[in-house]
Amino acid sequence: MTETEGKSETPEAREDAVPPILPEEDGAASERGNEHEIDQETDDLDARRFGRVQAALAVEDVGRLNEYLDPMHSADIADLLEQVSAPERQQILSLVPGQIDGEVLSELDEGIREEVIATLAPEALAEAVRDLDTDDVVDLVEFLGEDRQEAILGALDAPDRVAVQMALSYPEYSAGRLMQREFVVAPGDWTVGQAIDFLRVAEDLPEQFYHVILVDPAMRPVAYVTLGRLLASRRDVRLGSITEETFRTIAVDLPEKDVAYAFNQYHLISAPVVDDSGRLVGVITIDDAMIVLEEEAEEDILRLAGVSDESSISDGVADTVRSRLPWLMVNLATAIVASMVISLFEASLAELVALAVLMPIIASMGGNAGTQSLTVAVRALATKDLTRSNLMRVIRREGAVGLVHGLVFAVVMSAIELVWFGNAALAGVIAMAMVINLFIAGLSGILVPVTLDRLKLDPALASGTFVTTVTDVVGFFAFLGLATLVLL
Amino acid sequence: MTETEGKSETPEAREDAVPPILPEEDGAASERGNEHEIDQETDDLDARRFGRVQAALAVEDVGRLNEYLDPMHSADIADLLEQVSAPERQQILSLVPGQIDGEVLSELDEGIREEVIATLAPEALAEAVRDLDTDDVVDLVEFLGEDRQEAILGALDAPDRVAVQMALSYPEYSAGRLMQREFVVAPGDWTVGQAIDFLRVAEDLPEQFYHVILVDPAMRPVAYVTLGRLLASRRDVRLGSITEETFRTIAVDLPEKDVAYAFNQYHLISAPVVDDSGRLVGVITIDDAMIVLEEEAEEDILRLAGVSDESSISDGVADTVRSRLPWLMVNLATAIVASMVISLFEASLAELVALAVLMPIIASMGGNAGTQSLTVAVRALATKDLTRSNLMRVIRREGAVGLVHGLVFAVVMSAIELVWFGNAALAGVIAMAMVINLFIAGLSGILVPVTLDRLKLDPALASGTFVTTVTDVVGFFAFLGLATLVLL
Repeated sequence: MTETEGKSETPEAREDAVPPILPEEDGAASERGNEHEIDQETDDLDARRFGRVQAALAVEDVGRLNEYLDPMHSADIADLLEQVSAPERQQILSLVPGQIDGEVLSELDEGIREEVIATLAPEALAEAVRDLDTDDVVDLVEFLGEDRQEAILGALDAPDRVAVQMALSYPEYSAGRLMQREFVVAPGDWTVGQAIDFLRVAEDLPEQFYHVILVDPAMRPVAYVTLGRLLASRRDVRLGSITEETFRTIAVDLPEKDVAYAFNQYHLISAPVVDDSGRLVGVITIDDAMIVLEEEAEEDILRLAGVSDESSISDGVADTVRSRLPWLMVNLATAIVASMVISLFEASLAELVALAVLMPIIASMGGNAGTQSLTVAVRALATKDLTRSNLMRVIRREGAVGLVHGLVFAVVMSAIELVWFGNAALAGVIAMAMVINLFIAGLSGILVPVTLDRLKLDPALASGTFVTTVTDVVGFFAFLGLATLVLL
Repeated sequence: MTETEGKSETPEAREDAVPPILPEEDGAASERGNEHEIDQETDDLDARRFGRVQAALAVEDVGRLNEYLDPMHSADIADLLEQVSAPERQQILSLVPGQIDGEVLSELDEGIREEVIATLAPEALAEAVRDLDTDDVVDLVEFLGEDRQEAILGALDAPDRVAVQMALSYPEYSAGRLMQREFVVAPGDWTVGQAIDFLRVAEDLPEQFYHVILVDPAMRPVAYVTLGRLLASRRDVRLGSITEETFRTIAVDLPEKDVAYAFNQYHLISAPVVDDSGRLVGVITIDDAMIVLEEEAEEDILRLAGVSDESSISDGVADTVRSRLPWLMVNLATAIVASMVISLFEASLAELVALAVLMPIIASMGGNAGTQSLTVAVRALATKDLTRSNLMRVIRREGAVGLVHGLVFAVVMSAIELVWFGNAALAGVIAMAMVINLFIAGLSGILVPVTLDRLKLDPALASGTFVTTVTDVVGFFAFLGLATLVLL
C-alpha cells in the first residue's frame, strides 16, 4: 500500500497527456530500481533471484528463504517450483510450506501441482484453497483423484462447496468449468445512485468485477453497465440507459476454446454465462479466457510436432518419453510404408544408384511444402478464418501454389541434377516428380486437416502424419516409378 | 440499449448464487433464439449470414446489404471482408462504403487492410479513423506508406495527432506502440468521494478503463485502485488505502511480447506505462496484450513450419508463394547436403540395395524426434519456462530421452529388418544407427534453439532447418557408414 505525499495536483482524464521525454540522465537507471516496474532487465533479476533462493536452499536457511519468497508473486513462486530440481522442490515444501498457498497451487503446471499436492498435509491443503475463488478451486480439483478431491471440497464452506460441485457437473473444458459464480447483478430500472449505495453495503463482492449485470425478474441477463460508466454517470441516471452495445452472453455448455475465441473476437472483458433457459449462472472474465487462448495455441503447436499436449518442460525422462514415443511409433509405421514403396523399385535402384542419392530430396521437399500448407490450414481452422465461405478458394489456391512451387523446383532441381550427374533423362524425371509431389503436397496440406475437422477430429493431432505419409509415398512412387519407366 | 421491465427484485452480490438447473423443456431452445448469446450454433449462424450477404452481393441489393451488415460486430464484418473473394470485397466497398468504419479497419488482417485502405476515398478514410482510440490509430498507420500515413494523421485533431506521432516515435513492437494515451489519474491523498465527483464531471474519459492510477507530483504512478474497490468503498475512504498489491508498471521500451507475458503471468487487467524517468506516459489494457499473445503464438507456429508470419489465409497465390518459397529453397539446400552424404556411399548402396530401402526410416525418425524436442524448447523459451535455472537439467533430460527412444526403436527396427531382409549384421547396423541418430536428435533439438536464442535470433525461425539437417546428415552417415564398415 503506497500513499502519495504529493500536494493535490489537479488530476485530469488525459486524452492527450504528452509529458516530454526527458534526456537520459546519468544515474537515472540506478535511481529508479523500481520494484514494481517491468523492464528489459526483469528477466535477469528473476534469474538472480532464483539463484539466491537456490543458494539459501543449499544451506537450508529458512529465514533467508522466507525473506526471498515473501515479496514474490505467486506466479513467480510457481515458476520457481517448476524450474528447480525435484529434490530442491521437496526441500522448499518441507522448509517453508507456508509459502505454498492456494494462489501458488493455481499457477502450477498440472504435473508439478499433483506432486506438490501429494506432499502437502491435508490441513495445509484445506487452508491453501479456502481463500480461492470458486473457478480457481474448480481448476485445481477437476483433474484430481476422487479421494483428494473430497479432501479439498470438505475443507470449503458449504456454499463454496456447492458452487464447486455445481461447476464440476458441467462438461470438462466447457464455459461452466471456466466461470466464476461470484457476480454483481441489478434490475435495469435502478439508478446509478441505488447501484453505488448497494455496492457500498454489499458483502462478498467478487474480488474482481468489471460490469454490473442487469437482469430481468427471471434472472436472465439483458444488458450490462461497465464500472467506468457507472462512476462517470450522475446518481439519478438509470442503469438501463448507460448499457454497452457490445453485450454478449455465453452458453454454459460452450466449449472453452469457443469462449476464448469470442473474447478475442469481440474484445470482451467479462461476459455473463447463461443456462439453457437463459438464466444467469456465472461470469467468465478475460484473464481466464486469455489462459485458454494460450493453452489452445500451445496445444496446436505441440500436437503439430507430435508431442502430447500435457507435456511440460519440467517433466522427467519417463513422462517425456510417454508424451513423445506414441507419435514416433506412428511415424515409424508410416516410414516403413514409404520404404515399402522404395522396395518395389529395388531393381531400378541397383541399376542406377543416383536414384538412391536423389530420392530423399523429392520426399523432403514434399514433406516440407505439405507441412507449410497444413500448418496454415490448422491455424486458420482454429481461429475460424477458414470457413465454408472461403474453403473452395483456399483449396484452389493451395493447388495453384503447389504447382508454382513444383515448377520452380523442377527447374532448379533438374539443373542441379545435370551439373551433378549429367543425366538428361534423369533431370526430366526429377522435374516431373517434383511437380507431382509439390502439387499433391499443397492439396493434401489443406484437404487432410479440413477432412479431419469435418469428422470432428482435431486436425492438429493427426494431419502431420497423414500429410507426410502422402508426400513420402507419392514422392518415392513418382520419382522411382517414372525413372523405371523412362530410364530402364 | 435494453431497459428491463422487471420490478425491482432485490439485487445481490452473489457469492454462491446457485440457481437450480431447470430440466430441458420442450421448445426451450427455440424460445431462446437470443441474438446476443454465443452458443454452439453461433458458427452456423455466421456461415448462414455470410451466405446471405453473398446472395445480396450477387444481385447488388444495397438495401439488403445494409440490413445484414448493420447489426454485425465490426470484427465479424472484417472477417466477412477477409473471407469473400477479392471481387466481392471490391463490390462491398463500392456498394456500402459507409459500413467500413475505423473499427472494421482495425480488425482487418494487414494485407486485406492495405487493399481496403487503398480503395477508400481520403475523406472516407479520415472519417473512419477519427473516432478511434489513439492506440488503434497507431496500429492502423504504423506499417502504412508515408503518403497514406500523412493523410490519416492530417484527418485527426491536433492532440490526437501529437499522441499518435509520439507513439510512432517508440520502437516498433514496443510497449510505447501498444499503449493508449487516455488514462485516469488522481493523487493518492484524495478520497473516494473526490474521485467519483471528479469522474462525474471529467470530459474525454477513456472508452474503457479499469483503474484510477495514483500518481506523485512528478506524474510517476505509485499505485492503482480498481473501479470495483472504488465503488464498494465509502466516500470518506482515502484512495491510498484501497490500492492493489498486484500493481505493476511497464517500461515504455519493453518489447510487446514481454508485455504480453507480464499480463499473462501476473493476471493484469491494465498497467501504466512509464518512461525512463518513471513518469506515466500511457496505459496498456489486457485486450491489447491478448492480441499480442495470440500473434506471438501464431508467429511461432508458422515460423516452425517455415511460413512467413505475415501470411494469411486470405492471401492470393503470389503472396502465398512469397511467404513459403524462401524456406523451401533453404530446405532444398539442406536436402542436397544430406544427399551428398548419401553419395559418399554410392558403392555400398550399389552392393546392398536394402540400404537404400531402409535409410529413409533412420532419417525420418531422427527428424521427427528432433522436431519434438525443438518444439518443446522453442515454446518453453517463448513462455520463459526454460531459463538458466533449469537449462542443464533439460539438456540432460533430452539426451536421456533420446537414448531411451534410440534403444526402443533399435529393438523394434532390428526386429523388423530381420523379418523383412533377414540380415543379422544389417539388423545390428540399423540398431546402432537408430541409437546414435535419436540421441543426437534429442540433443540438437534443445541445443540449437537455445544457441539461437543466446545469439538473439528467433529460435522458431531457423531451428527446424538446422535440426533436420543435423538429423539427416547424422542419420545417413551413421547408417551408411556403419554398414560400409561392418557389411562390406
